[in-house]
Amino acid sequence: MKLSDIGEFGLIKRLMPLVAAESPDLIVGPEDDAAVWRVGGQLIIATTDTMVDGVHFRSETGGWRDLGWKALAVNVSDVAAMGGTPTNALVTLCLPPELDVAAVDELYAGLMECAGEYGVMVVGGDVVRSQVIAVTVALFGAGTERDGQPALLLRNGAKAGDLIAVTGTLGDSAGGLRRMDDGAGGDDPLVGRHLRPTPRVATGQAAVAAGVRCGLDVSDGLLQDLGHVCEMSGLGAILQADAIPISDELRAAYPDEALGMACAGGEDYELLIVGSKDKIDSLPVTVIGEMVDGAGVRLIDDKGFDRAGWDAFQS
Amino acid sequence: MKLSDIGEFGLIKRLMPLVAAESPDLIVGPEDDAAVWRVGGQLIIATTDTMVDGVHFRSETGGWRDLGWKALAVNVSDVAAMGGTPTNALVTLCLPPELDVAAVDELYAGLMECAGEYGVMVVGGDVVRSQVIAVTVALFGAGTERDGQPALLLRNGAKAGDLIAVTGTLGDSAGGLRRMDDGAGGDDPLVGRHLRPTPRVATGQAAVAAGVRCGLDVSDGLLQDLGHVCEMSGLGAILQADAIPISDELRAAYPDEALGMACAGGEDYELLIVGSKDKIDSLPVTVIGEMVDGAGVRLIDDKGFDRAGWDAFQS
Repeated sequence: MKLSDIGEFGLIKRLMPLVAAESPDLIVGPEDDAAVWRVGGQLIIATTDTMVDGVHFRSETGGWRDLGWKALAVNVSDVAAMGGTPTNALVTLCLPPELDVAAVDELYAGLMECAGEYGVMVVGGDVVRSQVIAVTVALFGAGTERDGQPALLLRNGAKAGDLIAVTGTLGDSAGGLRRMDDGAGGDDPLVGRHLRPTPRVATGQAAVAAGVRCGLDVSDGLLQDLGHVCEMSGLGAILQADAIPISDELRAAYPDEALGMACAGGEDYELLIVGSKDKIDSLPVTVIGEMVDGAGVRLIDDKGFDRAGWDAFQS
Repeated sequence: MKLSDIGEFGLIKRLMPLVAAESPDLIVGPEDDAAVWRVGGQLIIATTDTMVDGVHFRSETGGWRDLGWKALAVNVSDVAAMGGTPTNALVTLCLPPELDVAAVDELYAGLMECAGEYGVMVVGGDVVRSQVIAVTVALFGAGTERDGQPALLLRNGAKAGDLIAVTGTLGDSAGGLRRMDDGAGGDDPLVGRHLRPTPRVATGQAAVAAGVRCGLDVSDGLLQDLGHVCEMSGLGAILQADAIPISDELRAAYPDEALGMACAGGEDYELLIVGSKDKIDSLPVTVIGEMVDGAGVRLIDDKGFDRAGWDAFQS
């Protein structure tokens, strides 16, 4: 049996029981955007994400600065998806010996630009030789507690009747990737959204402060990510297709495909936030649906829609 | 200019000023085996290390279980090298879709075996597609404080007159690698030392408890690693070649090269501990030399010896 037979999520499900760890200090394990544990009365949030040449970026296009930004930003988004504050990062670079040093300088400049924007300190890392370029960031953050309870955005925190809301607009990253394939550069607004995601740290923190306890970031595509919430909360979801926020740029560029990109495109790094109306109302988000008893995600729309999200091994 | 022109340490030196972070909570930055910062009055130790196919291991030999063990163990060694206690890990697997699932099962079994041995919980990670297999672990640990001061083994903590000591025996890993090239398997004791390093967590903790404040792990080779201590402490070192602990197995297998392997072989994951005689005497280590005023490492021996350690891009 090959990895491609079971896919990324199949592999994760297979490995999860092996690592299932129990400890009084472990608050969130491998099942969420980030792990959370308690140290000295404080919550530590920890996450890691890798970008591999030819899979998550294309080194031949030379966008080293953007790569550095994104390698950190996708991790910042995981901390934002827990409602936390990013703090310190470890950066691992896998690089071929024949790479220009100038490329690494640019990569680090972009990474430090993102670090500055989000208040992250790079405190260590590793540099290794590899024929395939890869950038791995491990990011730590701080979480808060309220009344002695962890105040986090979890995937299993949804209740029937909760509203489903998202930050920003969805699908721009998928549109940007398509435009790059058609030769557009970083000055294209959609391409910019693909290359330089802007994690929603402040909104995640505001959601936690407002009492919201369910959320995640949209990295694999709205339908797939919302599916995780449904599965882990034991609920279903109904989405209003017309309510899904789509940018004017995306609608203009891909009028027939914009909704599909918004639902299944992935790599938006917006937040999906689930909570009661009174808590959601105070946040800068767009309500797109509701959690219901049942299972799975239904998209209420006159066009049928059943595209799956991104899968690391099968797509 | 290519990476191979400046080498791994050249690249690290180039990147260091970019990331040089200052914060009252940051105790150790990128210059040591691991980063250390304070959270809620406790010391967090964090480190990351990657193993790449064809560079740090050879997937065609199929030793998946050993690979899993070593990928975690080399990180545990970094925490041991700070005198800390490893706690939680994030594991990133870069894997090709055509890889057998059974290989990943084995890899994880070895990793969890090491986790069990050293009390580490795997709390999260990432799984990504890549044509080159790589395993990256980010490991966290706890450090202690004494009289309100961090009690850590640092590279810059040596004083003139301090003794230099090491745990275990050196060079076995290099010998094991050579024997693997000659067709030996994991039942060969030297090969076993190469494939399954046993980080010296307890000795690191004992050193800190005894008041020692300088140490690191021998990963790049004794001379090179001790060179880091010299450089960062502003001192020189004199080593007694005859005192360097070499196993009977290594001496029997490579009588003429054993000392060279012990001095420059790398990947031993033993601890190099530097401190005053009264503190060192209580520890299960072998004294091999002394820190002196000056610069650089001198090996006192009738054979001249000037081999450099391992470099990621130049070797």
